[in-house]
Amino acid sequence: MRGSFITLEGGEGVGKSTQARALAEALRALGLEVVTTREPGGSEGAEMIRALLLGGPEERWTAEAEALLFAAARADHVAKTIRPALERGAWVLCDRFLDSSLAYQGGAGGLGTDRVRAINLFGLGGTLPDRTLVLALSDGAERARARDNDAPDRIGGRPADYHDAVAAAFRGLAGEEPERIRCIDAHGAPEAVTERLMTALADLLPAQQITPG
Amino acid sequence: MRGSFITLEGGEGVGKSTQARALAEALRALGLEVVTTREPGGSEGAEMIRALLLGGPEERWTAEAEALLFAAARADHVAKTIRPALERGAWVLCDRFLDSSLAYQGGAGGLGTDRVRAINLFGLGGTLPDRTLVLALSDGAERARARDNDAPDRIGGRPADYHDAVAAAFRGLAGEEPERIRCIDAHGAPEAVTERLMTALADLLPAQQITPG
Repeated sequence: MRGSFITLEGGEGVGKSTQARALAEALRALGLEVVTTREPGGSEGAEMIRALLLGGPEERWTAEAEALLFAAARADHVAKTIRPALERGAWVLCDRFLDSSLAYQGGAGGLGTDRVRAINLFGLGGTLPDRTLVLALSDGAERARARDNDAPDRIGGRPADYHDAVAAAFRGLAGEEPERIRCIDAHGAPEAVTERLMTALADLLPAQQITPG
Repeated sequence: MRGSFITLEGGEGVGKSTQARALAEALRALGLEVVTTREPGGSEGAEMIRALLLGGPEERWTAEAEALLFAAARADHVAKTIRPALERGAWVLCDRFLDSSLAYQGGAGGLGTDRVRAINLFGLGGTLPDRTLVLALSDGAERARARDNDAPDRIGGRPADYHDAVAAAFRGLAGEEPERIRCIDAHGAPEAVTERLMTALADLLPAQQITPG
């Protein structure tokens, strides 16, 4: 049976990396094989593109070139890492995916979500997330955590209003696809947030799963 | 006045590079400023993408990822090199452009010309060639010249039937857009071919151009 494809999304500083690790552990504790990966990158070719995207000065790429590079990296990541794992029955848990491009380049970057979706669908061969979990903080909390990140990359280092627009774009996407995209409250203890994530995946988990131990 | 944007196209071994140099000289002899460039590459970012595209083993990229990388390189090339030159009044003569992606990835590669055109138009901001000159040889002659190229890159090294499909795709594109795309007979002395190219540009040349000397 094909595994489930889960993506974690959200702005800078919402705790995605911590939650990706904790969620993978919780799923493995149910006996599932879980492949964790993240974008941009996640395959040999996509990592080469990642280096082009995140290094260099802000003006290195136009918005359009940047969006096409993200789409190219994603096409490679899906073909080389994600689809093979799903096909052998593993769950794939990916830190950022298509919705990050829609929110960052499409919404906050002004290219338009429909145009950015189209160039991405070109490369994905129909492989799309079964569930997308958007970690959300109130704007003030999100900004404070992002400010504590003292080594932001080319995109994380953009100004606060850009990151507010990203958060608004994620809320808009969740409104358009409420079945796939779930907004998860990221305030509070990490363990409590992980529990909320697992609840939002409950309908995808195998029935009568035997918990080892 | 905005300069004219001319692209040279054709399969491997049709003499594009030689003709690009000769055509640039012929246009400069009319007093025009001519910027010569070539794809993939032609700007700092696009050259970095070129290195990813032309190096490595054949299976490095899926067809979709490869097409997106070409589109990303082209978006950078247009924004950083081609559009600024046209806007200051220079003519731009580019060795390979959009139609190469349509013929190679879209036609011969099987992705479909309409889909490949769409991801490219995303990045071009409306900057398209005023005239496209496709150098064409009979299939036998084209293959013989390509075979003499003893250091083909990742794409030039593909089998003969791929290159036959590329040539057929160029003929199809010329049939769809006869005003923009002109097929030029590439047999015979290089000087005779250059004359044919200049004839195919005659309507774009400034009237009453004063030839220096």
